[in-house]
Amino acid sequence: MRMMLIDKLVSQIIKLKSPIVVGLDPVLEKIPAVYWQPYTAEKNEFKKISNILFDFNKDIIDTVAPYVPAVKPQTAFYEVYGSEGIRALEKTIEYAKGKGLIVIEDGKRNDIGNTALAYANAHLGMVKTTTDKMQESFGVDFLTISPYLGKESLEPFVEVCKNYDKGVFILVKTSNSGNKDVQDTVNKDGILTHQVIAKFVEEFSKNFKGECGYSSIGAVVGATYPNEAEILRKMMPHNYFLVPGYGVQGGTSKDIVPCFNPDGLGAIINSSRAIIYSYEKVKDITCSKEEYKDCVKTSIINMRTDIYNMLKETYPNMLY
Amino acid sequence: MRMMLIDKLVSQIIKLKSPIVVGLDPVLEKIPAVYWQPYTAEKNEFKKISNILFDFNKDIIDTVAPYVPAVKPQTAFYEVYGSEGIRALEKTIEYAKGKGLIVIEDGKRNDIGNTALAYANAHLGMVKTTTDKMQESFGVDFLTISPYLGKESLEPFVEVCKNYDKGVFILVKTSNSGNKDVQDTVNKDGILTHQVIAKFVEEFSKNFKGECGYSSIGAVVGATYPNEAEILRKMMPHNYFLVPGYGVQGGTSKDIVPCFNPDGLGAIINSSRAIIYSYEKVKDITCSKEEYKDCVKTSIINMRTDIYNMLKETYPNMLY
Repeated sequence: MRMMLIDKLVSQIIKLKSPIVVGLDPVLEKIPAVYWQPYTAEKNEFKKISNILFDFNKDIIDTVAPYVPAVKPQTAFYEVYGSEGIRALEKTIEYAKGKGLIVIEDGKRNDIGNTALAYANAHLGMVKTTTDKMQESFGVDFLTISPYLGKESLEPFVEVCKNYDKGVFILVKTSNSGNKDVQDTVNKDGILTHQVIAKFVEEFSKNFKGECGYSSIGAVVGATYPNEAEILRKMMPHNYFLVPGYGVQGGTSKDIVPCFNPDGLGAIINSSRAIIYSYEKVKDITCSKEEYKDCVKTSIINMRTDIYNMLKETYPNMLY
Repeated sequence: MRMMLIDKLVSQIIKLKSPIVVGLDPVLEKIPAVYWQPYTAEKNEFKKISNILFDFNKDIIDTVAPYVPAVKPQTAFYEVYGSEGIRALEKTIEYAKGKGLIVIEDGKRNDIGNTALAYANAHLGMVKTTTDKMQESFGVDFLTISPYLGKESLEPFVEVCKNYDKGVFILVKTSNSGNKDVQDTVNKDGILTHQVIAKFVEEFSKNFKGECGYSSIGAVVGATYPNEAEILRKMMPHNYFLVPGYGVQGGTSKDIVPCFNPDGLGAIINSSRAIIYSYEKVKDITCSKEEYKDCVKTSIINMRTDIYNMLKETYPNMLY
């Protein structure tokens, strides 16, 4: 059996004892002033901000790389600055991959047919040039995708994942309370919509299982719904869960336990603001780069300990 | 009452007798060779393609501007080429606006809280720079958005629309058959999910009604579901429908009638491939720019006649 993307993720989680992904959600006003300073002379505002975003991300990546297997840039925070912002995203992806991190792009893309295929090739696959050569565009490892247009809208993404050994996390049950408007409706057999999507995730996984037993086709399951997570865990035993909602959004280490299997695997917990803006609790916008990075380091180590201890307490025989 | 975005759209539809939007979905392999030629010396492939895409779009925009009120770039086809592709999208938006066209960006964005707000400000609103000035990023008129995360995920977009006199088209009932997996489920009161979303669209519209009586908060309703469209038309009497699925996807002029009110307003019909690749039926990839533009012109005039005649036959007293 060949090593697949999911094997790389799982082996890093075990090695680092860290089922954690750090969200790279740069918000200009919250980035310490020291990152702004090198670019005061730049006249193009969006180009200037693009540089600031990338330098900020680089320091986060350097700081967290020894402690986590993956980072998760949220596309919206780069799209804010148009093509210049997207340039910062591209550079961030490249830099993170260079540091051996797995990159999960949180784009929640969704469409049908050729359009879905275009998104899939852009973010996960390869793109044909004028000379008929294939070239990577964003080249991330995983992309989040949204299922409002049904199973057929997910298939082009899954197809590209198969061709390029990539993965997706399909939105199943999101962390916000308003999700119920759509995600808790039922189909004609009385099955909850988020469970219908869970079933698709499970079905897609047949060709994606790695040596570790898990699949590169995953699900987004919010930390804020532990009861639903318990059912979803059983419905998708071999699928990885990307879990938002820990920390700032109110989910605790106890809430995330049902997202895991007894082997301590099956879920990766995201934290963005509680890590990358942890400096705000002890310093202010004038802090130095060293002070900033110290806060990031402390908060990621604390999060890892919090989650690891809770898992070990619940599943003493887990794999790491 | 002040003139709002929707009044501009409606007055152009009436003036041009054309409830039509042309989709700008550039696919490199289908773009006539003459558009590739000026850039043979460019070494950066994505920069080269970005220039080709923009030149191609310029000729489409110049050709259709006298006949339609709006164009609809599909974000995926630009994202394919990363930041360079997004640069072509930005230039296309600017050029179309310069020609007096309304720009509907088909991005199907979706997220919650600050992330949804970031998408809304990026595409519809304004963005704060390092000097605390506000600057437009994409600056489109309308954006399509996707509701899998529920009503609360739509609200940040609606809020930005209110502040900047912009609009959204919220996915309600899409043109693909697979939509039923999610869109035809029911909530605890037995209401179909796509009708639940329709109700949100209607509720959001209170502060958006222009002089024309319609709202800048619209719905995406596929031409392939005329029965559902009839019900949705009654549920959202004042909302504009963006209607995909006419032409290549199988919807006929008869199918789109239920999307309209008897005033001949309330819907705008999209066509992409049947217009911008109409040359393929009579010419090939070696055609000249004049030949290419003639095909675009003929196909858009034919589509306008087809839709106008069907509407006039159904609603002889319509407003244009």
